[in-house]
Amino acid sequence: MKYFDKILIANRGEIAIRVMRACRELDIDTVAIYSEPDRNALHVKYADEAFCVGEAHPSKSYLNKERICDVALKTGAEAIHPGYGFLAENAGFAKLVEEEGLTFIGPSWKTIEALGSKIGSKQMMREAGVPVLPGTPEGVTSVDEAKKVAAEIGYPVVVKASAGGGGIGMHIVESEGELEEAIDAGMRIAQSAFGDPTVFVEKYLAKPRHIEIQVLADANGHTVHLYDRECSIQRRHQKLLEEAPCPIMTPALREQMTASAIAAAKAANYKNAGTVEFLYSNGKHYFMEVNTRLQVEHTVTEFITGIDMVKQQIAIAAGEDLAMDQEDISMRGHAIECRINAEDPLNNFTADPGKIVRYRSPGGPGIRVDSGIHMGYTIPAHYDSMISKLCAWGSNREEAIQRMRRAIYEYVVLGVKTTLPLHYAIMHNAHFIAGNTHTHFLQEEHIATSLRRYLHEEEARMQTLAASLRQGKHVAAITAAVDVYIQRNSK
Amino acid sequence: MKYFDKILIANRGEIAIRVMRACRELDIDTVAIYSEPDRNALHVKYADEAFCVGEAHPSKSYLNKERICDVALKTGAEAIHPGYGFLAENAGFAKLVEEEGLTFIGPSWKTIEALGSKIGSKQMMREAGVPVLPGTPEGVTSVDEAKKVAAEIGYPVVVKASAGGGGIGMHIVESEGELEEAIDAGMRIAQSAFGDPTVFVEKYLAKPRHIEIQVLADANGHTVHLYDRECSIQRRHQKLLEEAPCPIMTPALREQMTASAIAAAKAANYKNAGTVEFLYSNGKHYFMEVNTRLQVEHTVTEFITGIDMVKQQIAIAAGEDLAMDQEDISMRGHAIECRINAEDPLNNFTADPGKIVRYRSPGGPGIRVDSGIHMGYTIPAHYDSMISKLCAWGSNREEAIQRMRRAIYEYVVLGVKTTLPLHYAIMHNAHFIAGNTHTHFLQEEHIATSLRRYLHEEEARMQTLAASLRQGKHVAAITAAVDVYIQRNSK
Repeated sequence: MKYFDKILIANRGEIAIRVMRACRELDIDTVAIYSEPDRNALHVKYADEAFCVGEAHPSKSYLNKERICDVALKTGAEAIHPGYGFLAENAGFAKLVEEEGLTFIGPSWKTIEALGSKIGSKQMMREAGVPVLPGTPEGVTSVDEAKKVAAEIGYPVVVKASAGGGGIGMHIVESEGELEEAIDAGMRIAQSAFGDPTVFVEKYLAKPRHIEIQVLADANGHTVHLYDRECSIQRRHQKLLEEAPCPIMTPALREQMTASAIAAAKAANYKNAGTVEFLYSNGKHYFMEVNTRLQVEHTVTEFITGIDMVKQQIAIAAGEDLAMDQEDISMRGHAIECRINAEDPLNNFTADPGKIVRYRSPGGPGIRVDSGIHMGYTIPAHYDSMISKLCAWGSNREEAIQRMRRAIYEYVVLGVKTTLPLHYAIMHNAHFIAGNTHTHFLQEEHIATSLRRYLHEEEARMQTLAASLRQGKHVAAITAAVDVYIQRNSK
Repeated sequence: MKYFDKILIANRGEIAIRVMRACRELDIDTVAIYSEPDRNALHVKYADEAFCVGEAHPSKSYLNKERICDVALKTGAEAIHPGYGFLAENAGFAKLVEEEGLTFIGPSWKTIEALGSKIGSKQMMREAGVPVLPGTPEGVTSVDEAKKVAAEIGYPVVVKASAGGGGIGMHIVESEGELEEAIDAGMRIAQSAFGDPTVFVEKYLAKPRHIEIQVLADANGHTVHLYDRECSIQRRHQKLLEEAPCPIMTPALREQMTASAIAAAKAANYKNAGTVEFLYSNGKHYFMEVNTRLQVEHTVTEFITGIDMVKQQIAIAAGEDLAMDQEDISMRGHAIECRINAEDPLNNFTADPGKIVRYRSPGGPGIRVDSGIHMGYTIPAHYDSMISKLCAWGSNREEAIQRMRRAIYEYVVLGVKTTLPLHYAIMHNAHFIAGNTHTHFLQEEHIATSLRRYLHEEEARMQTLAASLRQGKHVAAITAAVDVYIQRNSK
């Protein structure tokens, strides 16, 4: 069955390639878009057709809704897959796509819009019986109102911008004395960052886990879950490592959380793939938000369930009924994903774009690599620093960890600093091995210590490599390869 | 649990790396051996220690039993994994290893010896009630005896060397008039190739399938099977493509064949991983031989069962009981392996060793690569032409084929001719897609036609690449990478 003849992928890097892989397997032609500095990117080469949509800055290219729709219409693409990031959760884009007579591969723009509001979506979930953190049901704009609510739910509380994300304008408040200043600062930052001063106050959990449930729903509302993911290891409120299933999941908790997730999806009239995110603490889970798109970490769910999420998205967007019931979906083993970012984990994760001078992928049993880079590729400074996703599957969590260690050892990415050494340190950290993680895990001292010890050993290895380089061995090999290459290919 | 502290891997290339990957995951140190031309091979770099055992010719290095045992003793390795090929099924080597106080990771040398005899092993299986092709129970050395047997079982029959393998000395005989010449020729060739003129006569199956059952047995004789593999696609009696499960398997046939395989293993007092190979024709299966080692195609079994075969081998060799019963072993989806050989499929599979000038591994969901090569590596002419194994898993056979097509498209190996285009043609062949294969599949015209058509399209792609090369784009990128590499690494 052919769902579409041609799909435009409104994204770049590894996720654009991920979507194109599914299209290629389904015999669907692909159209890539790219910004000027991405002219030679892998996703451009992978697609059947590729069109430049503008300058480096996202607003001029990957966020340029009208131009992207124009390319789709011009090339005869019938559907647009937004990937994640950029326009993936932009209701206006989904609406425009629909108005142009094209298919948006994701939920309806109305669902995206409704779930995009932090306050509105929590209100919707409260009404649907999904547990939500105690707090202000609507946003607050006065200190007195905030004081009243905080007194009710008890300190500590957190003040967050209603329109925001990524922790901008977020303040933790330990006692009533600190509240006024936090509200004032939060409203000021919210106004300047998002043009809307509304903030809300809710119960603060000190060291919660981030646990999420993957759901799939078709246009008829037939909704299933694909189990849970543990995503607590984060830097600057962005996930760095995810696993499936959650290591502390019990049958009872899974039953509760998946039921909450299905209820959340049904409340939002959800269609296509989505993720219901929860905070978890002391045996209780609280709704955070629904990500109305494919997640970066869909890979670990694919590993344990054997279900290709992107193909499911395409089939649902084409109007197909979900070809599975809940009892058809089973889970095997354990999977971990490490996000490989071009950044310096010892220098506050500062981005380190640049040229990849040596690249070798890991392989063998249980390893999956989704990479947007290759040898000789220059990572541009304009976009997200994630360059590759390394996933390991094992028959149990212990084996998944062993395989991830082994794969990190095998993975060669030279030319830029990456998060590989940090992941290696995490894989050897006793708390991680025991499954004891929470959202502040990376800030704790033991990880930095492990990382420094690892880098010390690594430095010795690098010095050996540098010594052999000085002797000219590697350079000779590369230049010889270039010679043969020229000789064989140019007549 | 740590089974051994250190293991020597008596092999090279991708299989040496495969075994080392398992060791690394189990925290076991590894010792590599290598011949002089393999000094810079990937398996040498992967190991914790590496020792040169002699000159290029296998008899001087990878078959040099005594020197290999010496390295194991010198380095304190406690066990030796033979991989496949070379000494893997050499009873004398397994015996020597044992005599030196080391552990051979495989069955006992007595089992290897007993199953190594074509005639002896068939006799053993007949007695154990395993179906064997009708033929001479013992070898024949006279034409009259052969005529009598052939008349009983009916023509066509096949004459084979008892000591041989790989089709050497094999003749198909359609009628009694041809038998005398075939026996004479077979005995002459058997004498000169193996120093033993004994031949045997058995029923000839015109277009049989090669189906095999993977078994695992511990030292207590606890024996389980890990389902079936279809391995009919062969060139020169060597497998080129394998899949699991067999596409024509039915529950009833599987019950019969796995029962035969377990009976065969028990009859041979089998320990460790082994494969019972059968010919299949018209609803019946006939025992061929037991491969007393890990198979090249263990990968597809790992994909569908989730069980790491090499780790199981190591655990069993360490004296552990099998940690599973038959009912613990389940099968999910479908897996295909394509052997990537450096050879020319349009020129009778002539080996094409040489330098890899461009290399990029495929990735994404359901893909596994076990490669012994990398960019800049020179494939030596002295050894087997297999350079990599590309495996694809899908939730069903159709998805596995779609993913394999996609992975072949992604796989870049430039500098030598490979079997990649042939596999691409097979993946588009209607008979293969329908699951209709047999051991003479590759000789049939339709495959050559598909391949030529594919190569015609490929040539156009290559000419585009050559044109861009002439414009100097790629060369500039590579030389620039070299410059940055030198600059960053040499102080």
